[in-house]
Parts: sequence; C-alpha cells; structure tokens
Amino acid sequence: MAGNPAARGLMDDTALLDGLVITHDMIAEGVHYLPCDPPETVGWKLAAVNASDLAAKGATPQAALLSLTMRGDGGWEMAFLDGLEAALAEFGLDLIGGDTIALPEGAPRMLGMTAIGRAEAKTPARSGGQAGDALWLVGALGDAAAGLTMLRRDPSATGPLVDAYRRPVPLLAAGQALAPQASAMMDVSDGLLIDADRLGAASGCKVEIDLDALSLSPDFIAEHGDDRAACLFAATGGDDYALLLSAPETVDVLGLSLPVGPRVIRIGRLVAGEGLSLLECGEDVPVPERLGYEHRST
Amino acid sequence: MAGNPAARGLMDDTALLDGLVITHDMIAEGVHYLPCDPPETVGWKLAAVNASDLAAKGATPQAALLSLTMRGDGGWEMAFLDGLEAALAEFGLDLIGGDTIALPEGAPRMLGMTAIGRAEAKTPARSGGQAGDALWLVGALGDAAAGLTMLRRDPSATGPLVDAYRRPVPLLAAGQALAPQASAMMDVSDGLLIDADRLGAASGCKVEIDLDALSLSPDFIAEHGDDRAACLFAATGGDDYALLLSAPETVDVLGLSLPVGPRVIRIGRLVAGEGLSLLECGEDVPVPERLGYEHRST
Repeated sequence: MAGNPAARGLMDDTALLDGLVITHDMIAEGVHYLPCDPPETVGWKLAAVNASDLAAKGATPQAALLSLTMRGDGGWEMAFLDGLEAALAEFGLDLIGGDTIALPEGAPRMLGMTAIGRAEAKTPARSGGQAGDALWLVGALGDAAAGLTMLRRDPSATGPLVDAYRRPVPLLAAGQALAPQASAMMDVSDGLLIDADRLGAASGCKVEIDLDALSLSPDFIAEHGDDRAACLFAATGGDDYALLLSAPETVDVLGLSLPVGPRVIRIGRLVAGEGLSLLECGEDVPVPERLGYEHRST
Repeated sequence: MAGNPAARGLMDDTALLDGLVITHDMIAEGVHYLPCDPPETVGWKLAAVNASDLAAKGATPQAALLSLTMRGDGGWEMAFLDGLEAALAEFGLDLIGGDTIALPEGAPRMLGMTAIGRAEAKTPARSGGQAGDALWLVGALGDAAAGLTMLRRDPSATGPLVDAYRRPVPLLAAGQALAPQASAMMDVSDGLLIDADRLGAASGCKVEIDLDALSLSPDFIAEHGDDRAACLFAATGGDDYALLLSAPETVDVLGLSLPVGPRVIRIGRLVAGEGLSLLECGEDVPVPERLGYEHRST
C-alpha cells in the first residue's frame, strides 16, 4: 500500500460543522453484507451503521443523504428502500437528498449514506480519554459475528444472532445519556479490540481490557461457548454497533439514567503507555494477531 | 424498472438544512470517467461535479466528506487524492471526513462526495421558473462531450476538449452572482436538453430552446462542425457543468457583474404548457429521442 488515507484526514469517523455532526459510511455487497441478505435488511443496516456513528457522539439524528446504485429491474432497490425508510423513521432521520447511479456491468452493489445529527452540549471525540479513566461497553458483543458465521454455513439460518447481524440497532438514547459523562466515545463496528486500540491510540493511552468482564449472550454461548476462544471471537468479530467509552472513575456510569435494554459493563481502563493488553483474573494473556476488521485493500 | 427512486425524494439535487446546502454525487469507473483517465483528474472531477451543484445554488463552498474505495496497492488512490485535494483547495472546500472501504474483488471503483456549502440570501430551486421567464446558459456547451469522443477514439488524446471532459471547472462565482436574480437554477451535467426539460417540469412550464442561439467553441467546431447535428450533439452530450437558469425578462442578466470567462447566452424561454421544444429561426425542429444521459440501470 502506497499510503494510508487515514493519515490524510479520511478516518471513518464523524465531523463537526456548525453544530452538526456529520458522518458517511458505505456498505458493499460481499464485504459488509451477504448477497443473500434480504434487501430490506441491507437498507436497515445502512441507516443503522450511520445512526450508530451519531449515537457515539450523543447527537440527535436529523437528516440523511443516500448514495444508491441501481442494478437490474430495480426490484432489489425498492425493497432496500423499504427497509431503509423504516429504519430512518425509527431513528428520526429525514431523507433529504442523495444520488442514484446505474451500476457498471458486473459491479457489486455499493451503498452509502451521509447522516447528519444535531450536536448536543458535548460531542465526545475518540481522543479525549485520560490515563486512569475506566472503560465501558454498552450493548451486545459477538452476537452479530455469530449470526454471520451461521449465515455463511446456512444462508437460510434465522434467529436472534442472525437478526443481530442483519438488523443492528444503534444505541441512540444510550449515546445521548452517556455523552456528557464520557471522556471519549466511539461505536464498535470493526471489533471491540481493534476499536479499543484505536480509542487508546487517539487518546495517547494504553488500553487494558479484562476479558473475564466481557458479557456474552445466552444465544451466543449456545453457539460458541464461553471459553477464552469464544470471548476473543466475540471481541474481534465486529458489526456489534455497541458503544465504547472512557469516563473518569468519579463518574457513576451504572447510576446514570440509561435506557432499558443494552447491557452496560465495565471492561477495563486506560493507563499510561500505548498499545493494548488483555487480562484474565488480572494476569496478562496473549493479544490475538487479528484485532478485528481492517479497512484495507488486499 | 419496478420504481423510480426520484419519486421517493432521491433526486440528484441539493438539500437545504439549517442554512447549509448539501449535495452528494458519485462517479463510477467506466460510467462517469474512463479507466484510462489519470487518477489526479478523477479526483479533480469528483470535487468539481459536487462543487458545481453548490454553484447552481449560489452557495459558498465550505466542507466535504469523501467516500473512497481502495483497490490494489493504493497508488491510484494516492494520485486521486492529490487531484482531489488540489480541487478542494481551489474551490474552498475543507475535507472534514468520510469513509474508506476496500473494493470487493473485480469491482469498478466508485467514488462519492458529500459537499456542503453555506446558503446565501437566495438559494434558487429547480422549480421556481415562471412562464414568461427567459432561459440563460452560462458556460461552455459540448466541449466535454467532444473530449470524451476523442478519448474513446484515442486514449492518448490531449487538448482543451479533453481538458474540458477531465477537469471541469464549477462556475462558483457566476452562480453566486446569478442566484439572487434567478427564478430557477441548476447545473447542466447530463445534457442541456434533458436538464432543461427537468427544470421546466419542476417549474410546471414548457421549455423553448433556440438552437441557433447556442454558442459552440472554436475547438468544438473544429472537431464537429456547427450544423444542426453538431449543435444537438453539444446539447445532449453532458458533462458540461454549465449553469442553466431562468430569470424574469426584467432582469438584465448581461448587465450583472459576472466573472470574466464563462460565456453567458440567452438560449430560450419558459412558456405555459409542458415539455420541450426546439426552435431554429423561430421554427420548430424535431426534438431528438435522446435528450441526454439518464441515470437508469439497463
């Protein structure tokens, strides 16, 4: 690779402009969703992954622009729009514009959204964490990755894990409740370990994660068990759209008025230094080579 | 086609939100640019086509988000970013964010931009034209289409027509000067006839265009001549990024303080009725079947 776009300001994060939080995320067939995924769920997912970026900034969703590609008779796209519009309505995003292009011959579908939210009193960055802060995770870990594994084995698979993969729910209310207290916050989209590593790097701190603190769902455990390998699978799988935040020890995160639903757990801390370490019963365990999904061309 | 996204609010136009003009345009390899086009020019073009949408609203460019795809070793993308950044600097757009994804195997490149401008005192819509208004064109017509034709014949072609295709210049200063006086304005990206037809339809008027008023450049004429066929080729070719506007007869468009450079010509009028007619010496001439580029999957 001749260079890294992230070094030129193109990190997949949000921008702040005139009190608006603005984000743009794309999803591509065969990369971010499976060709067999129902188009309604692809539309839902595109809106959800963008709304999740707003959630991580504690922003109030406002408007969206869609980049739509068309292939074939348009039937897929119309079902996609049904799912997209349902999600936009659910998340409070108005569709105000966009662009539609015909797909070049043989091209996989690529769909993009620019989502715009109103910034509230505080918009936590990735970079605001301090050594000594506690690290918190809000939302489920590993369910979506387990659903993707099921679908790869059997495209007709159904159930809550498949739903977690296909219809993620952005934690908008939790994000708004947590933002004023968070020193840093981001959503977990590529895997907890890789995203925690990014939060630590942006904040100039080392991240310590207590593997035994991570909470796995009964559905996940039924598929993958709950040993260290299962836990690492969950922590590197991605597509969680959970919220990861750091907050000073003085903040009683569990005492905040959070919406019912998503699990809120303390998973570690920021300390002086750099990099990522994993602990089990307070002892260092090896960090896996692959921390999550990296956006690199191969 | 099972439906038309335009009917669901997905027209490739700009949106107005909180005093900001927001637009999103994509370009795809093999559709909006040639695989042989130098990547620097593709970056320039992506910024220019988006800035042209801001120009058509008389907006002051402010910020941009990029949707970048990566393929291979990243060399193409780095050169693309060089051209993009040069254009953004030229047009006054700050790159504030975006997303980068690895391209799926075998996929053509698709690049998108969300451009954001500050709305000035008046933001003319497509739909504000009135019967009796004069129709004006600002900028060159047909040069880009002629350049594309040259490149299809000989990928090593160079010269001002090729430059018009590869490095369009958005008419930002002209757009700002004209917006307060325009009843309707849009940029000409898909072809004068199809875009004029759209302006007329949005304004609830019939459009009459005087073919003999259209002005062709010496470079264009050297390649295609200046007969009716040449004129229709120029009026349906697209990629002009000229400005098309309607204004009341009382507005002295030629007397406005416009920047030196782009040609400003009166090309017709809006009248009661619907559809598009073409006149030569005041007489109706047949309207070609193809008015320009239509964004439809085939």
